[in-house]
Amino acid sequence: MADARYDPDNIFAKILRGEIPCHRVYEDAHTLAFMDVMPQGEGHTLVIPKAPARGLLDADPASLAALTASVQRVAQAVKTAFKADGLTVFQFNEPAGGQTVFHLHVHVVPRREGVPLKRHEGGMADNTVLAEHAARIRAVLEGQG
Amino acid sequence: MADARYDPDNIFAKILRGEIPCHRVYEDAHTLAFMDVMPQGEGHTLVIPKAPARGLLDADPASLAALTASVQRVAQAVKTAFKADGLTVFQFNEPAGGQTVFHLHVHVVPRREGVPLKRHEGGMADNTVLAEHAARIRAVLEGQG
Repeated sequence: MADARYDPDNIFAKILRGEIPCHRVYEDAHTLAFMDVMPQGEGHTLVIPKAPARGLLDADPASLAALTASVQRVAQAVKTAFKADGLTVFQFNEPAGGQTVFHLHVHVVPRREGVPLKRHEGGMADNTVLAEHAARIRAVLEGQG
Repeated sequence: MADARYDPDNIFAKILRGEIPCHRVYEDAHTLAFMDVMPQGEGHTLVIPKAPARGLLDADPASLAALTASVQRVAQAVKTAFKADGLTVFQFNEPAGGQTVFHLHVHVVPRREGVPLKRHEGGMADNTVLAEHAARIRAVLEGQG
């Protein structure tokens, strides 16, 4: 992916610049987490670095370390908030790898026994539902969950 | 997963102790990478921390940071070695999340346009093939690829 360039007009870059809204779950100096609008399961959350990177391979190691720390923190909160039996974590690189938005992101999907993942293109979730889900995760992160 | 315990007799712990062989790709003080014996695609590699952890949530942050750095390094080599168009990275937690071996591990699967992932239970790969694949990735890591 050395030849793949970062496009600053990708949708997650716009979210980071506040040009597009998101259902925010967590934010620190280096990372942002928000609800996936096409969830593969209830509580499907995305964690992204603020530093521009197209994917895993071109990410600055320090940014990647911060991203990983946030993924662990958010994953714990997502699991608690949704009383999940498990978690599935995905990270896709390039279209052949499943990537559709070209800003590095990690999918955190809470899982329940016997409930298969939905397709990512399964449709946009209701905004009210996503807002409630984000609030539920934030409450755990803030120690109220 | 606070209630889930680490079982020191899991198969990856045995690999770390040298009790079971593996097709080694990369090793440093904190991590080990080797070929998945039930590959979902040619070149499917696993990266694990040496420190015991059942999954993402109970991993020591320093161990997790070292794991992430190795994942990035190995992913670059895997992509180069297999001339992949993309990479799919998975990390599964608990049976509901897709986990089958209960030592934290990250799947790195090189992907090609139009080639779907095989099922993980699709069968054991040929040892000779896996050995050749591991050698191919090691050659890239050693600057010969």
